[in-house]
Amino acid sequence: EIVSATLHAANPIRDLAGEHLLITAGGTREAIDPVRFLGNRSSGKMGIALAEAALKRGAKVTLITTASRAVSLGCERVLVESAEEMRTAVLDRLPGATALIMAAAVADYRVTNPAAQKIKKSGEKLTLELERTPDILAEAARLRPSGTLILGFAAETERVVEEGRRKLREKGVDAIVANDVSRPDTGIGSDHNAGVMLFADREVRLELSSKWTMAERILDEVHRLRVLRDRSEVELTPGY
Amino acid sequence: EIVSATLHAANPIRDLAGEHLLITAGGTREAIDPVRFLGNRSSGKMGIALAEAALKRGAKVTLITTASRAVSLGCERVLVESAEEMRTAVLDRLPGATALIMAAAVADYRVTNPAAQKIKKSGEKLTLELERTPDILAEAARLRPSGTLILGFAAETERVVEEGRRKLREKGVDAIVANDVSRPDTGIGSDHNAGVMLFADREVRLELSSKWTMAERILDEVHRLRVLRDRSEVELTPGY
Repeated sequence: EIVSATLHAANPIRDLAGEHLLITAGGTREAIDPVRFLGNRSSGKMGIALAEAALKRGAKVTLITTASRAVSLGCERVLVESAEEMRTAVLDRLPGATALIMAAAVADYRVTNPAAQKIKKSGEKLTLELERTPDILAEAARLRPSGTLILGFAAETERVVEEGRRKLREKGVDAIVANDVSRPDTGIGSDHNAGVMLFADREVRLELSSKWTMAERILDEVHRLRVLRDRSEVELTPGY
Repeated sequence: EIVSATLHAANPIRDLAGEHLLITAGGTREAIDPVRFLGNRSSGKMGIALAEAALKRGAKVTLITTASRAVSLGCERVLVESAEEMRTAVLDRLPGATALIMAAAVADYRVTNPAAQKIKKSGEKLTLELERTPDILAEAARLRPSGTLILGFAAETERVVEEGRRKLREKGVDAIVANDVSRPDTGIGSDHNAGVMLFADREVRLELSSKWTMAERILDEVHRLRVLRDRSEVELTPGY
């Protein structure tokens, strides 16, 4: 039994061999001036767990991340900071990927005119004018080569499933992992997560677990989507 | 010689024995909503280097920090997040301290009304209304018990010495370490630093060095200030 367990750990199921996963991780930072920024509490742990798990299951992985924490050898890592940098990194690499999983928390708004010098304290009040950042997930879904799977995350504090379903529909992606980030024990910054994975035709509950376990569950679904996709392509091929 | 060097490393000069240093480190975060915040690029390295060096030189140290990175046993650590939390932690502990060194990058502005729920994307534009945070350094200088030394940092991108001199004067502190954070090789986030330490009657250039070396130079000046202060108190004592 010990030998069998050891062999299994050394040779996990390589059901993602042949996939090239593009995974985003961390939270973007949008500069206000050279020192200050708009940020969010994403730690990058969920995206990194996905990257590590996918590598073990035989996939080629490119991790586009704002978090400088180390990842395994064999994982290509691209460090970015802002939503715009993440957009460029994702869209540049999308044509070579078989699936995109956007686990990063991308800023929705950025400062309209970041200052080149540190803003000096002056009045009691200050107004920051913000503008929308590009919607990378929706853009990637529009531009994807045929057969590329696209998965997004929705971090919500209210009406988690409804908001996740809306994003699934409006962005035109294959699945949304919706999670409740108002719970102190899961989600952003935590080592744990819980949520629901939403597809056009079904939902999969992701019970409270470590982000490592949740990553494996999500990759099981990526594998299932791939099998379904390959089968439907065969069925759609004329004269087959 | 090897024996002597070893003895020296094990027994560094304990010239700060009897001091209780209150040191702040890191950058504060001001909540926009449960997920997003206003932040700055401070890593906490300078404040932590000061805390570690002061401990070795015999001081008691309380580190008030936003950075969760580990510090040596023997250093009391207080984790805070916002400017307001840092203010409370500093002012609560100031009466027991002999010196305060504010190496943290405290936000100058915070959001006037942080949202209790994650702000949903809506329009193309968003306006964030900000208000001033309390000036902890000036407040500590006003409230300090007699004899307590107060040192601040000034991270500037322009007219570094002039801005540092203005802060020294306006905040009523004993010294300001002014550094140029527009240089990519020093300051915020870097392992290195350089600047100038400004006193009412003189300046000390702090050449480019590791933050560890710079911490030692700053503590040399704290020690010098203490010796001068003790001497002037003796001279001012009537009938001595």
